[in-house]
Amino acid sequence: MLNKQLLSPKSIAVIGASNDVSKPGGKILLNLQEHKYKGKLYAVNPRDPEIQGIKTFAKVDELPMIDLAILAIPAKLCPQTVEILAHTKKTKAFIVISAGFSEESEQGAEWERQMVETVKSVGGVLIGPNCIGALTPEYAGVFTSPIPKFDPKGCDFVSGSGATAVFIMESGIPKGLHFANVFSVGNSAQIGVEEVLEYWDKTYDPETSAPVKMLYVESIHNPDKFLWHASSLIRKGCKIAGIKAGSSEAGSRAASSHTGAMTSSDSAVEALFRKAGIVRCYGREELTTVASIFMFEELKGKNMAIITHAGGPAVMLTDALEDGGLRIPRLPDTKVKAALKDKLFPGSSVENPIDFLATGNAEQLGAIIDACENDFDDIDGMAVIFGSPGLQPVTDVYKVLSDKMKTCKKPIYPILPSVINVQKDVAYFISSGNVNFPDEVLLGRALTKVYRTPKPSDENIYLEGVDVAEIRRVVESCENGYMPPEKIHALLKAASIPFAQERVVQSVDEAAEAAKELGFPLVMKVVGPVHKTEVGGVSLNIRDEDMVRKEFARLMKIKGTTAVLMAEQAEGIELFIGASYQDKFGHVMLCGMGGIFVEVFKDVTSGLAPLTFPEAHSMIRNLKAYKIINGYRGMEGVDKDKFAEIIVRLSSMLRFAVEIKEMDLNPLLGKGDRILAVDARIRIEK
Amino acid sequence: MLNKQLLSPKSIAVIGASNDVSKPGGKILLNLQEHKYKGKLYAVNPRDPEIQGIKTFAKVDELPMIDLAILAIPAKLCPQTVEILAHTKKTKAFIVISAGFSEESEQGAEWERQMVETVKSVGGVLIGPNCIGALTPEYAGVFTSPIPKFDPKGCDFVSGSGATAVFIMESGIPKGLHFANVFSVGNSAQIGVEEVLEYWDKTYDPETSAPVKMLYVESIHNPDKFLWHASSLIRKGCKIAGIKAGSSEAGSRAASSHTGAMTSSDSAVEALFRKAGIVRCYGREELTTVASIFMFEELKGKNMAIITHAGGPAVMLTDALEDGGLRIPRLPDTKVKAALKDKLFPGSSVENPIDFLATGNAEQLGAIIDACENDFDDIDGMAVIFGSPGLQPVTDVYKVLSDKMKTCKKPIYPILPSVINVQKDVAYFISSGNVNFPDEVLLGRALTKVYRTPKPSDENIYLEGVDVAEIRRVVESCENGYMPPEKIHALLKAASIPFAQERVVQSVDEAAEAAKELGFPLVMKVVGPVHKTEVGGVSLNIRDEDMVRKEFARLMKIKGTTAVLMAEQAEGIELFIGASYQDKFGHVMLCGMGGIFVEVFKDVTSGLAPLTFPEAHSMIRNLKAYKIINGYRGMEGVDKDKFAEIIVRLSSMLRFAVEIKEMDLNPLLGKGDRILAVDARIRIEK
Repeated sequence: MLNKQLLSPKSIAVIGASNDVSKPGGKILLNLQEHKYKGKLYAVNPRDPEIQGIKTFAKVDELPMIDLAILAIPAKLCPQTVEILAHTKKTKAFIVISAGFSEESEQGAEWERQMVETVKSVGGVLIGPNCIGALTPEYAGVFTSPIPKFDPKGCDFVSGSGATAVFIMESGIPKGLHFANVFSVGNSAQIGVEEVLEYWDKTYDPETSAPVKMLYVESIHNPDKFLWHASSLIRKGCKIAGIKAGSSEAGSRAASSHTGAMTSSDSAVEALFRKAGIVRCYGREELTTVASIFMFEELKGKNMAIITHAGGPAVMLTDALEDGGLRIPRLPDTKVKAALKDKLFPGSSVENPIDFLATGNAEQLGAIIDACENDFDDIDGMAVIFGSPGLQPVTDVYKVLSDKMKTCKKPIYPILPSVINVQKDVAYFISSGNVNFPDEVLLGRALTKVYRTPKPSDENIYLEGVDVAEIRRVVESCENGYMPPEKIHALLKAASIPFAQERVVQSVDEAAEAAKELGFPLVMKVVGPVHKTEVGGVSLNIRDEDMVRKEFARLMKIKGTTAVLMAEQAEGIELFIGASYQDKFGHVMLCGMGGIFVEVFKDVTSGLAPLTFPEAHSMIRNLKAYKIINGYRGMEGVDKDKFAEIIVRLSSMLRFAVEIKEMDLNPLLGKGDRILAVDARIRIEK
Repeated sequence: MLNKQLLSPKSIAVIGASNDVSKPGGKILLNLQEHKYKGKLYAVNPRDPEIQGIKTFAKVDELPMIDLAILAIPAKLCPQTVEILAHTKKTKAFIVISAGFSEESEQGAEWERQMVETVKSVGGVLIGPNCIGALTPEYAGVFTSPIPKFDPKGCDFVSGSGATAVFIMESGIPKGLHFANVFSVGNSAQIGVEEVLEYWDKTYDPETSAPVKMLYVESIHNPDKFLWHASSLIRKGCKIAGIKAGSSEAGSRAASSHTGAMTSSDSAVEALFRKAGIVRCYGREELTTVASIFMFEELKGKNMAIITHAGGPAVMLTDALEDGGLRIPRLPDTKVKAALKDKLFPGSSVENPIDFLATGNAEQLGAIIDACENDFDDIDGMAVIFGSPGLQPVTDVYKVLSDKMKTCKKPIYPILPSVINVQKDVAYFISSGNVNFPDEVLLGRALTKVYRTPKPSDENIYLEGVDVAEIRRVVESCENGYMPPEKIHALLKAASIPFAQERVVQSVDEAAEAAKELGFPLVMKVVGPVHKTEVGGVSLNIRDEDMVRKEFARLMKIKGTTAVLMAEQAEGIELFIGASYQDKFGHVMLCGMGGIFVEVFKDVTSGLAPLTFPEAHSMIRNLKAYKIINGYRGMEGVDKDKFAEIIVRLSSMLRFAVEIKEMDLNPLLGKGDRILAVDARIRIEK
């Protein structure tokens, strides 16, 4: 985990420092000085005796004891340098800017391993290599610009890509997004995104820690750790927005006809983010917009008031919010509403959007916000649109807006579109600690995305009726490959998954006995003949013992019949549950309606095992076919609690059967609370 | 239509001019002067003898002859002022900035009508009232800022909202979007968006006209005119991007169970834009991004090369493009590729994305672009991502990029994300006439949207086998309300729509005769008994005359049977075609698969009647259920040409039957080229 030498070093040495600030070793020293690092700062350079006015040593051996070393020297020199520092200078923190390691060659990978080994041997930490560095409250240890304004209650940010981290900051800063700590983890040799999350989680203090975390991730090495700390942080009150780039590569993999195999690695990421409660973003603009939204009080409900001095943007925002599931309700016709209308200019509208016209002023804006805050109880949040055609100053309006944003309990999202006309006013507004959303539609979409992201799920594994010992016995008794039917039955029984039961009987009394065990209605089929239907060897809807006896006699007379198979008759809506094991992620569960619903409409939702009941319910609710499952046009639906229970049980079962690489219950037939798996395929790979 | 006095006035008078530039009448005079209007400029103001150094008259009566008058005086004074100018000063063009007309009160609407009448009586034009004015190559006749740089080959823009127009320009200018003419039509008293489109269409000259048009529309008064001129412009080589705000209000209307009634007014807009070939946008950022894309050569195919010096943004752009249907193909392993790799630094990748590393330089960028332009034939366009971490200057890189953008035949979209680090370089890049897309994902989404927008459809009405005279006879013979079955049959027959035919027969010879007419297979049902199935009164799959005779005899013996109904037996996939008449738009046609596909999955596409074959095919192809219609997993599909023909014929029929307000063919059953309408409902309202 990150240590105090990295976070609050008493001394920093820049190895490979330079007077040329267009070089990383020059720029990083400049940044450290310009942003007022208060500890002792040293430079190492074999040629220059003084660099940027800083005491410079020709060799690392000559340095005094050093807490943090920042290396900007050729890769091949790094391992030895790290070793000297670690072993003779008590250095416990390293940031290796240099590239040319595992990302480039096998030799580089070896150097990287050597450094990690050395660092580990002294209990230190290593950031990088191949990164831009770190920004903390204490120092600006990056070789890039811009250096964002430090704000302990701003945004913590960890990025798997250095350049992308810069571009993300460049997207956030103009919106007014502030940053606390920024870590660029580069090759993640020792410290990756997961370790930074771990540190943030373990040290989280609601009073002092940054309440918002941003992630840019290209690969997740340890999904369990990622999930654990991300969801823990969110449970502690933190909010996390993240990009996991690379969805399309996975998405373009040839779709398999086997539903369980439909889970791409991107669906695993999707499921992981959802389980953790992270808002998944797909671009820099969206990421910084969501992080900016996180700077506000949480929207408690779905009703928004839009307050505007111009019609168009309010209409577009209404479209975007309603489209994403938020609501712009009509305001109730009360005295308050009438009184508010009186305070506005003629022609203003106090419906919702509240349009107080191009001539609307600061005082009116204050009155509208107050009414929404105090009087319109249904309203959960506000969006205020106020630009300028370039005539009147807007300073007083932005002042009122800024004040109200700080005092109101309901969140107020400002949309100040006139980034040219009132550039200075917008800049002042931002410099007062506010964020701005210049485009209402981008805000609207991000806001609905935040609103729709579920809370992290809890960690309990549901084990009622799940016989773990028996599950292990069955799995261990299986060979690699597809499990035989009897093993599948045994396995599903151990997890209390209802499966259409079967009995093969050879006498009429056996048949009557089996019927009692199986219950009615029943299906009876001949055993022996190949084309069962054509020889009249299938009887459906057997409803009583009398019918059992008659049909048994009839069936046994059919040529080639050696016995009769009796099975529970499943009926109702066709459902499926699938799962596939994804390396490191574990089992990704899928559910949906079977057949064309999954194959043509791709109507599938996913979750990461083990699942909780709320998660399973959310998977079911998010199906497009939810209406059908819920009972549609007189057709009886499926008991959703029962369906959810089956999904949860299966996910618990899989947790103890990692040898199961693919599982496919397809179909399950469901009507009311009677849901029966009719067919199942399970593939084992040990 | 717009006249030369409005577009190139020899003289302009600002009525209500002021020395106070925070007032519209002051600011507009300032804009006219600052942006060097070359004609004669006069001011009218009863109090000040000189305003902003301009010759000022106390009353309009004192003015000389005036081409264009811009009114910024109280609404109630406008009608009289217009009258004096029109009748005594030969003024033929008016821009009425003032508000307080039809948008505010009945009195205002009356003043507005008076002005229009006066202006029409002298053959003049009126822009507004309640608008920000107009920007043309000759003058800056708006009271707002910013005044964008004039570029005759930039973007023409017409807006139904003044403030929104300002905000849209403020969104476009920082991207480098240039403008030619801008019209704010306000209340559209005489000149609306349609009339501006008409003018652009009629005067379009590929050599001199602006090749890109942007629209912001809140309501479409004359969809026919809108469609005609927009599609005509696009056929002439123009590109149009538009926002029609207000989709959600319509979207939230209670969904009707009647499919034909599912067409909301927004689906009419959607169908109109698609038919015209306009790229529909949903926000300012998207609109100006699409308009910026229009400034490039058209992307001829779907294969893009991504050229980048940073991995992250390239991955995110790949995701966005692939997600939207464009492709980032692997580059072929050729000598060219090997030679290109040799020119780049070690560690660079010449797969696609082509990553030439953080250290990549201008020369390398040039080589990569040249290879994509000349050697990689599969590549249709390029996106270049180049930001800066703040170390090296990027001037030479941006110079190469700018040069290549001007000389290459394939479009090159620049993504310069470092809007802070290299602010000046980006500004210089833009000032050289280039646009910039700061966010790769927003570009990616807009680019795929442009790529997927179909070309405008042609205007021919398909009339083969559509008996217009008979259609009129049938419609005219109907009362208001739902048409009786025999009328529906007659109507569909007149349009050559295959409908499951029926005959009621009372003798066995009649039955045999009917069978010959109807063809096999047949359905035979008893006429008389209520519960036909329960009494065994329904026979399916009648395949020859012999069976007809036997079944007739059997059915007639069933108690209560008075006759036998014989009908063509339809089978196959369930389809539906619906239509509803939308005020001013005409008939919006819908198609899809029936039942839950439309009701649960909302899998419906729409188009505006009359439809062409390419449009109908596009409607079918865009259904999610297309795979099923196409034949799925051994299940025979439907002949798409036949299905398209039925849709087209119905749309032609409706063109001559505006009295049909709702039509619902549900289901049609289709298998191969045999598609039969089985049930139809048509509602007439004259």
